[in-house]
Amino acid sequence: MKKTTLEGIIAYPITPFDDNEKVDIKLFNILVERLVVNGANAIAPLGSTGVLPYLSDEEKELITQNTITQVNGRIPVMVGVSNLTTERTLHHAKFAEKAGADAVMIIPMSYWKLTDDEIFIHFNTVAKQIDIPIMAYNNPATSGVDMSPALLKRLLEIPNVTMIKESSGDVQRMQYLRKELGEDVAFYNGSNPLALAAFAAGAKGWCTAAPNLIPELNNNLYKAIINNNLNEAQSFFYRQFKLLKFIVDTGLPRSIKAGLNVLGQDGGNLRSPLRPLNEKEFNTLRTLIDECNDVVLTDT
Amino acid sequence: MKKTTLEGIIAYPITPFDDNEKVDIKLFNILVERLVVNGANAIAPLGSTGVLPYLSDEEKELITQNTITQVNGRIPVMVGVSNLTTERTLHHAKFAEKAGADAVMIIPMSYWKLTDDEIFIHFNTVAKQIDIPIMAYNNPATSGVDMSPALLKRLLEIPNVTMIKESSGDVQRMQYLRKELGEDVAFYNGSNPLALAAFAAGAKGWCTAAPNLIPELNNNLYKAIINNNLNEAQSFFYRQFKLLKFIVDTGLPRSIKAGLNVLGQDGGNLRSPLRPLNEKEFNTLRTLIDECNDVVLTDT
Amino acid sequence: MKKTTLEGIIAYPITPFDDNEKVDIKLFNILVERLVVNGANAIAPLGSTGVLPYLSDEEKELITQNTITQVNGRIPVMVGVSNLTTERTLHHAKFAEKAGADAVMIIPMSYWKLTDDEIFIHFNTVAKQIDIPIMAYNNPATSGVDMSPALLKRLLEIPNVTMIKESSGDVQRMQYLRKELGEDVAFYNGSNPLALAAFAAGAKGWCTAAPNLIPELNNNLYKAIINNNLNEAQSFFYRQFKLLKFIVDTGLPRSIKAGLNVLGQDGGNLRSPLRPLNEKEFNTLRTLIDECNDVVLTDT
Amino acid sequence: MKKTTLEGIIAYPITPFDDNEKVDIKLFNILVERLVVNGANAIAPLGSTGVLPYLSDEEKELITQNTITQVNGRIPVMVGVSNLTTERTLHHAKFAEKAGADAVMIIPMSYWKLTDDEIFIHFNTVAKQIDIPIMAYNNPATSGVDMSPALLKRLLEIPNVTMIKESSGDVQRMQYLRKELGEDVAFYNGSNPLALAAFAAGAKGWCTAAPNLIPELNNNLYKAIINNNLNEAQSFFYRQFKLLKFIVDTGLPRSIKAGLNVLGQDGGNLRSPLRPLNEKEFNTLRTLIDECNDVVLTDT
Repeated sequence: MKKTTLEGIIAYPITPFDDNEKVDIKLFNILVERLVVNGANAIAPLGSTGVLPYLSDEEKELITQNTITQVNGRIPVMVGVSNLTTERTLHHAKFAEKAGADAVMIIPMSYWKLTDDEIFIHFNTVAKQIDIPIMAYNNPATSGVDMSPALLKRLLEIPNVTMIKESSGDVQRMQYLRKELGEDVAFYNGSNPLALAAFAAGAKGWCTAAPNLIPELNNNLYKAIINNNLNEAQSFFYRQFKLLKFIVDTGLPRSIKAGLNVLGQDGGNLRSPLRPLNEKEFNTLRTLIDECNDVVLTDT
Repeated sequence: MKKTTLEGIIAYPITPFDDNEKVDIKLFNILVERLVVNGANAIAPLGSTGVLPYLSDEEKELITQNTITQVNGRIPVMVGVSNLTTERTLHHAKFAEKAGADAVMIIPMSYWKLTDDEIFIHFNTVAKQIDIPIMAYNNPATSGVDMSPALLKRLLEIPNVTMIKESSGDVQRMQYLRKELGEDVAFYNGSNPLALAAFAAGAKGWCTAAPNLIPELNNNLYKAIINNNLNEAQSFFYRQFKLLKFIVDTGLPRSIKAGLNVLGQDGGNLRSPLRPLNEKEFNTLRTLIDECNDVVLTDT
Repeated sequence: MKKTTLEGIIAYPITPFDDNEKVDIKLFNILVERLVVNGANAIAPLGSTGVLPYLSDEEKELITQNTITQVNGRIPVMVGVSNLTTERTLHHAKFAEKAGADAVMIIPMSYWKLTDDEIFIHFNTVAKQIDIPIMAYNNPATSGVDMSPALLKRLLEIPNVTMIKESSGDVQRMQYLRKELGEDVAFYNGSNPLALAAFAAGAKGWCTAAPNLIPELNNNLYKAIINNNLNEAQSFFYRQFKLLKFIVDTGLPRSIKAGLNVLGQDGGNLRSPLRPLNEKEFNTLRTLIDECNDVVLTDT
Repeated sequence: MKKTTLEGIIAYPITPFDDNEKVDIKLFNILVERLVVNGANAIAPLGSTGVLPYLSDEEKELITQNTITQVNGRIPVMVGVSNLTTERTLHHAKFAEKAGADAVMIIPMSYWKLTDDEIFIHFNTVAKQIDIPIMAYNNPATSGVDMSPALLKRLLEIPNVTMIKESSGDVQRMQYLRKELGEDVAFYNGSNPLALAAFAAGAKGWCTAAPNLIPELNNNLYKAIINNNLNEAQSFFYRQFKLLKFIVDTGLPRSIKAGLNVLGQDGGNLRSPLRPLNEKEFNTLRTLIDECNDVVLTDT
């Protein structure tokens, strides 16, 4: 199996739409390029931020290919390939591998609550037929199913399920994984407001859409952790905490699109039923971004 | 607008698959016919029981057309047309209307939590472009969003949103709707174990997959309510309560398919990742169905 | 063992305080008398409504004795004797029995979550040393511990634990008890807004503070149930539903005291930190009580 | 006002009972002495660990006096004075101050959910009449009421409410307090399994019963934080994480008493209904304590 170890800031682009709510692929490439040049350690299209479930198969394939072409090997690319059915999940996983992805991410979407066996077989069926690493993603709020630490442990016995992303918002989950699975388990934090707590608990990386807006603060937090400087990490974290909380509370596709506009960058349109932030939300976001930047400037 | 008042037992068929996990449309028609001849008051394909979200657009259209042809006007048909995007929801709603559906049901699916405004515009956009009634369906466990009574009230102001289906499992919600919206509001219960409590609270109908297995008990409960005979309704309800709870706890597509097998009826296959009940679950289900039937026989 | 079967409307008096926040026992006796003459089927001092946990041992004994003297055998008296420690629970249970109580009610108060064994031994220790029936009361919101149906079933094996009061707000719990334990299990509803649903499910009685304010409507609901007249029960229930919800939402001691004032009856003071309803709440309560009474008048 | 800044490891003794379930005050003094000589930075009798709500007024006063006499000024003493009524809370707060306590801790116990105003007045009434600092303690699981960050902020406007203890188990709460109230707000962690995350978030201290069992590991974690050495803090934390989780999951009074027995130290009896760990739990605890000590030895 091709080995790829993801570490640090794993950046999630949004999927921008044009005036007819079609994917704006040119703008998407521009947004990907921004993330790369702003220092992301990896890039992850077709996540929740990229409104994966709102896209057709063709659109997903278009985005997969464009990301890989645009990134062009500068940093690893991990493609979201989650789907309600096993058959479609496998289809997109194979497509991503063939297109040159370094890894795929799979969340066990569910409409009907899945049993542990159903989830295990779902992952195993896909894993056996591809040769790149899989990040198993737990996010009960969006997938409708909460994978227990015991199930995550079982999934890690599948050879190319090598990474766990935890977004249940519970630091104890990460601590349990680290304690039960040993120091070498690669777990990643997907809950923005827990970025500091997760790194303190030993997370290898932070899966986040925040680098679309404040890449420098995100990078500095990670560097402080790498340098074993808790005080500095704390300081960088608190500068961005309110923004991190805001973009989660208002929904990442909506808030990142708006934040790009605050920064003077076109963020495209949203696909209905998602709608732009209202004016009050937009102004709050502007203030929060300004505060982040002010502090950074003050620092230098 | 074409008026259709749904009342009583609104039966939900499963969507059966063949050995290659393709929709088995012949078997589907047989299962629809069973529901009609067993006394359902209406039929509702493409609900959660019918694994709507696991189907392609073509499969949904196939099922819509076949249901309407098979039922052939004997009872009303309400088609599930829910989709993550507004554009696809509208597409399927129009298709259902053109195919001859009497009503459509829409649950506001979400991956990103939708705001009240997003949900209202979603419903309104669809409602304006069709001429048949809409049942707004609240089921936080599967949709990921909990529509407040206030939002439901607002939706009812859209002319052809005329029915509310509540599956949040909270009787007080239904009571609130009835109290706030007046005796004429048409609310329906979608939570099987609350069938008696919901009818007692004034529900106009019961949206349920149980008639695939125990139509007589379902019908008798409804008749007792219509006859204002609480004691009899209580008695009929308690005969089916454990079965109702079981089929919900194990997931309706899985348990209904297994229950059909218990009754000697082919139920087809499931689409992965959904998997059949295990042996222990199957035997429990057999016992529960036997108990329902025993009691009914004893009675006569 | 002395047999006492409680049925129907089990009324809970508040404990009124004087200007120095001492128990006003004369006023208490007046409030008890009101409940008796207004048709309650049983009376239950020292419940949550009676702010049991805010009282000293001496105050509890004073109230126990006064209730029994005042009621004077006209209807059964069930005394709340719950306490964090087993020793104090036993003390008050023995006191109540000696004073002439017909039954005692025990909720397993907890600060530290109790195990099932701890709860069982707690009840069993008390039950063995008294000779009157015990109502085991489940109310996770106030006791901090949720007794599972399995534990309740185990408690019912103790000879004089003969009644179950469910206030978890989940109708399915009551249905499960009824189904598992047979038609003869005596379960009681302690959740006011579920009064209709609980009676429909077969509850033997309704434990409620509402008869302090609207005894006629409470009694009429129960009579309609006894007469197997669901339509009438529904009608009586909906007339009081909003008031029932309001008095629960604002806290029974606070709202009943205020409601007595609305009716021109002294309700005494509260003991700090509990404080009176604010003006807006008071006015809402006045409107809700007026609505209840208007409708009743209209009816006659 | 007398200023006392608590920092670091704030140790909670249990309250041991004799064979008749009376407080064993001699043994209590021994257990307090152990905590002091083992390096606690402060000591806090009559907390949840000390089963405050299970004690009579006289017992609380006995424990207050004995703690202060035994500690004899070597480290600060913070006494728990929480009570359901404002009158009793004030009584115990005054008693503690007169006895020489450095601070008091108050959790807003509730049986009936308290409004924000009720809680504020409760704290303010007590605070005005004593002259030592108050730690406001938020623990929804035991108090039954969840104080919002906004309410905590309001409480901090009372001059001698100078410390906040958060045990809601949500790191984001602490982060919010720190961000909203500034770097100088003194917030303390009361959730053992969140010890590392809370220190990373800037907690001034850790309120914990763990020093009864593993004082060295607790102290070392705090020292690593003070030394800005995240890697070392992480290492010390993971050595104790499983034990911390276990003592919380089985209940602190029960598990600390058992852990003292594992260490060869008499821990007295519990007061009913609390009961000792069962054999399986006891053996698990023994293993976890052994693992903590093994690692520490290996280290030296």
